[in-house]
Amino acid sequence: MSITVVGSIAYDTVTTPFGERDRMLGGAAVHFALAASFFEEVRVVGPVGEDFGEHELDVMRNRGVDVSDVERIPGGKTFFWRGKYGWDLNSRETLDTQLGVFEGFQPKLSQASLDSDVLFLANIQPDLQRDVRAQLPNARFVALDSMNLWIEAARDSLVKAIKECDCLILNDSELRQLTGKASIYAAAREILEWSPPHPRVIVAKQGEYGAALVTNEGFFSLPAFPLERVVDPTGAGDTFAGGFVGYLAAHSDQEYSEELLRQAMAHGTALASFNVEEFGTDRIEKLSGGEIVARVRQLREFTQFSAAAEPLRD
Amino acid sequence: MSITVVGSIAYDTVTTPFGERDRMLGGAAVHFALAASFFEEVRVVGPVGEDFGEHELDVMRNRGVDVSDVERIPGGKTFFWRGKYGWDLNSRETLDTQLGVFEGFQPKLSQASLDSDVLFLANIQPDLQRDVRAQLPNARFVALDSMNLWIEAARDSLVKAIKECDCLILNDSELRQLTGKASIYAAAREILEWSPPHPRVIVAKQGEYGAALVTNEGFFSLPAFPLERVVDPTGAGDTFAGGFVGYLAAHSDQEYSEELLRQAMAHGTALASFNVEEFGTDRIEKLSGGEIVARVRQLREFTQFSAAAEPLRD
Repeated sequence: MSITVVGSIAYDTVTTPFGERDRMLGGAAVHFALAASFFEEVRVVGPVGEDFGEHELDVMRNRGVDVSDVERIPGGKTFFWRGKYGWDLNSRETLDTQLGVFEGFQPKLSQASLDSDVLFLANIQPDLQRDVRAQLPNARFVALDSMNLWIEAARDSLVKAIKECDCLILNDSELRQLTGKASIYAAAREILEWSPPHPRVIVAKQGEYGAALVTNEGFFSLPAFPLERVVDPTGAGDTFAGGFVGYLAAHSDQEYSEELLRQAMAHGTALASFNVEEFGTDRIEKLSGGEIVARVRQLREFTQFSAAAEPLRD
Repeated sequence: MSITVVGSIAYDTVTTPFGERDRMLGGAAVHFALAASFFEEVRVVGPVGEDFGEHELDVMRNRGVDVSDVERIPGGKTFFWRGKYGWDLNSRETLDTQLGVFEGFQPKLSQASLDSDVLFLANIQPDLQRDVRAQLPNARFVALDSMNLWIEAARDSLVKAIKECDCLILNDSELRQLTGKASIYAAAREILEWSPPHPRVIVAKQGEYGAALVTNEGFFSLPAFPLERVVDPTGAGDTFAGGFVGYLAAHSDQEYSEELLRQAMAHGTALASFNVEEFGTDRIEKLSGGEIVARVRQLREFTQFSAAAEPLRD
């Protein structure tokens, strides 16, 4: 059961309180793929320019990621982002964005990528997301991410894209913006009712606070793994998505039960917590499966309590 | 085992997306006391003006709260706050603050209040907190809250006050401000080491995201209870503190184990979620113990997952 991810492959120049790093490998599809590779075979579909290095492709290949659908555009330049984080790492400023080859991106999927039964549509123009989604009509699980730009500039297309997928993964502020509802829970409930049974899973990413899961069966919330030091939050959301979708893909013999989705949330959360410990993809490149399993166990310890049944004073 | 709370008793005029309410009963000590009254006898110490009504005292009396240390200042006016919340209820603007009798507040504790073995020092000037704390040298559990104002204007006094208590309950942004640490977890760990064994419990309030608990034994995080509609967030933090400290007071025959603290967090979280469902104290006034127990059980359902033990692809 392989996973296809369509999205950006980028160079990121990032300044955080812990230093500055120039032209690191980044992009949503990359962060997603590296995380998902701990669970399943992953195929990356996305464009790069002539400036894109073999070393960067090797980072993905070393994790078993199939890069044969990474399209090198002659004369083009790889998507570039430069940003700076504030002292508490919760605010960030974009200093430069050069779309490069990402501007005219038309995803081209090989037969192998079309045969994947799990698809992740990273944050790209929603009409492109719909186009790709239509090419995998039999995919067993399709998730998509988006951003405020598309909510503002292409809301109708985005709503259609969401209605064609199984799972929406979005920042909580974007869920608010998309629905006009102040309560994340109410926002998610509304989206679940747009076009039942699609989507049937809503994940609200909450940054340093963790993530919440809303389905027709229930509600689940998981904090971020507590860290003494966050070095670089770039890509945390896509790494979370890679862990979440990757875990589901590895268990697609099972129904997408509430329990399975919760375990997937825990794996996504663990992966994201490793991602932010070092710049770019540094930490995930040297991560082991055993470390992920251990962190999922710790997350469980950090969230369990027994409910006392004693009566209270009325 | 009774609880003494020292803090503000107020009139609040509040505008939220769901309407405006004029001169509602409010104040940290009031919200705390009403919540804690579900677990233990509570004594309120705080000043009111001549404008303070018998009806407002009855709201507390009806929940069994002892108001004999509520001091009525002749010719004085009760603390007044007016504020307006933004559409998503996470930002608020203070439009008016009239300290009134709260300005020269010198807490006077009756022998019964001095005999309490649990003390909550709501947000007041830290030297006053220290003065009260010194009057209850044998209290079994002392918790305090504070705010950004005192971190800026009286940091040294606040640090001394914190070192004399068992438990610090603070907003996460204030924990950052107090320590200069970006990570809430690192901030809490630092405060635990200021003057061991005091404080030994740190609670980070995270607003709509819930709350986290940091002790020398462990870390625990609990989301806020998911609500479709938040009507008025005023007093949620103090209501949380009332449920948390109240639960601990009701179990002060036990050691303050990690498990007991986690259950207390769940009860505080449940109480806070009721508080925000209606304006002011309206919801808590008609709340039943059974509703709290049911919501704690739901919180448990919303946070549990099983940790799969299978190996991952390295």
